[in-house]
Amino acid sequence: DSSLKVFTLNSNPSLAEEIAANIGVELGKSSVTKFSDGEIQINIEESIRGCDVYVVQSTCEPGNQHIMELLIMIDALKRASAKSINIVMPYYGYARQDRKARAREPITAKLVADLLQTAGATRVITLDLHAPQIQGFFDIPVDQLVGVPILSSYWSKKGLDDIVVVSPDHGGVTRARQLADRLKAPIAIIDKRRPRPNVAEVMNIVGNIEGRTAILIDDIIDTAGTITLGANALIENGATEVYACCTHPVLSGPAIERIEHSNIKELVVTNSIPLQEEKHLDKITQLSVAPLISEAIIRVHERQSVSILFD
Amino acid sequence: DSSLKVFTLNSNPSLAEEIAANIGVELGKSSVTKFSDGEIQINIEESIRGCDVYVVQSTCEPGNQHIMELLIMIDALKRASAKSINIVMPYYGYARQDRKARAREPITAKLVADLLQTAGATRVITLDLHAPQIQGFFDIPVDQLVGVPILSSYWSKKGLDDIVVVSPDHGGVTRARQLADRLKAPIAIIDKRRPRPNVAEVMNIVGNIEGRTAILIDDIIDTAGTITLGANALIENGATEVYACCTHPVLSGPAIERIEHSNIKELVVTNSIPLQEEKHLDKITQLSVAPLISEAIIRVHERQSVSILFD
Ligand SMILES: Nc1ncnc2c1ncn2[C@@H]1O[C@H](COP(=O)(O)O)[C@@H](O)[C@H]1O
Ligand SMILES: Nc1ncnc2c1ncn2[C@@H]1O[C@H](COP(=O)(O)O)[C@@H](O)[C@H]1O
Repeated sequence: DSSLKVFTLNSNPSLAEEIAANIGVELGKSSVTKFSDGEIQINIEESIRGCDVYVVQSTCEPGNQHIMELLIMIDALKRASAKSINIVMPYYGYARQDRKARAREPITAKLVADLLQTAGATRVITLDLHAPQIQGFFDIPVDQLVGVPILSSYWSKKGLDDIVVVSPDHGGVTRARQLADRLKAPIAIIDKRRPRPNVAEVMNIVGNIEGRTAILIDDIIDTAGTITLGANALIENGATEVYACCTHPVLSGPAIERIEHSNIKELVVTNSIPLQEEKHLDKITQLSVAPLISEAIIRVHERQSVSILFD
Repeated sequence: DSSLKVFTLNSNPSLAEEIAANIGVELGKSSVTKFSDGEIQINIEESIRGCDVYVVQSTCEPGNQHIMELLIMIDALKRASAKSINIVMPYYGYARQDRKARAREPITAKLVADLLQTAGATRVITLDLHAPQIQGFFDIPVDQLVGVPILSSYWSKKGLDDIVVVSPDHGGVTRARQLADRLKAPIAIIDKRRPRPNVAEVMNIVGNIEGRTAILIDDIIDTAGTITLGANALIENGATEVYACCTHPVLSGPAIERIEHSNIKELVVTNSIPLQEEKHLDKITQLSVAPLISEAIIRVHERQSVSILFD
């Protein structure tokens, strides 16, 4: 059997370390640096000829930099005769640009899929795609792992009473249902609508939250506007406490400030995107996806089905 | 005949303005901004259906950002039914990564060619590629314009006497010969060699420079080490004055400082890469490639040969 190598780029080095340790291999020797003018220089410092290579890289901020690192690494691996080039991308950047919502928009999520394949990727392992349709943008196998079991284990252990799982918008109801099933809890939905143009949005709660502990769930928390306004609406409508969770903590711009000053008691996220120093808040708990991803890598490498990890 | 549109991205907006003015069109309406998390958002604000579109973008620093802007723009133009998508890339970033010099290196110049084609580019107009072989990395037409005529006109008008054109290394002799032909001057070559490992390089001058005005020429000046050490060697070996020129002023890291404190009296460059505020030195003269590029665009659009512009 061909040997398995795990390489990291610059987005998630400690996640990659954890994955390699779980699998029982050393992280592949390589360096990703910059020339004086900012161009990326990659050195792969060990032979990978005939190997099954797994490259860990989320395309989180700085996303364009991380995408280019990944493409150049794939090119180098391909030319160095890797047997397979498996991209482990816990967070898939540009996933929200997945359709033409207006005239003359790009579909950058599809572009990224094409670029990865052009460079030479042979498989993608990812986590909670913003839209599952993105799998169809690829002509190579895509394994989409799910974060809900990791989040639900945490909430189960925490042992909150009288839970209601809340989707912050219409798009996330399926995800809320998945978490609620595991927690044996009911669901509610924050139903935003604008009665007339240029009139403030009304937040209506569909479902019973009164006297209950609400757990908001989303896939991505970016500027945290949706989730913090949602938390306010829940408290105003009689929820006793509000918790929140998501898979991908993008947390850009005002996010940290908003969460800090919000009604959210605790925010639980995964390490699909590492938290930067200044994003380390007492309120935020980060759970590792390394066990899940390691298991997926081992199963792929041993030609076993990965779908058992999908719920 | 289909109509011609010129769009700019963020690398060279004033060059693009100049090109559009020369051609006699308004610059296409579009905006390239960033979402809160740094992902690129492109809006094309006019119809380009059935048009021949020319997009001006050098992939200079920040190169990865500029490459991604370009790829996303191409994707948007393709999906908006452009008839042709012509990339005007005065400076081709990553051109120095054009071969595997060591084991397991990427060939990023080829990767970039593949990415542009995957996104949907149908033609590339560029200037002084670091290696002319990069044209062969594409399966679409590539017009490579040359900067020597622009540089040589400047030197002719300046009217220096007893010129010798000097190549700073072995790789640039052909370029030096082209400039020398136009200036009816002899050439010399700075012949660096290391007598033994771990011994300082010796700079030997091949050709007669004594009592002459030397004009150094290169394609790219990046950190300016080669060119400023070369200037020292020329003065030490009897040149009376040293001037320098290049097509692409990358000027990264210590470049400006080195040029300022060097023996170089004047450095002449083109605007294939705009000079940043802090790069505006009294010593640097910048010549516009807009007339050359505009002429090339008009010829391409009118289905005339562009090769007349190649010398
Ligand atoms: N990085 C981003 N930050 C914020 N909004 C984005 C980003 N990328 C795409 N979008 C927009 O988000 C919308 C899609 O989000 P959604 O409706 O949640 O699928 C589209 O209108 C996109 O233009
Ligand atoms: N952006 C860059 N800055 C400095 N050196 C580079 C850059 N890109 C590639 N190189 C290196 O430059 C060498 C090629 O330059 P040249 O010999 O002038 O063609 C190769 O060894 C490359 O690894």
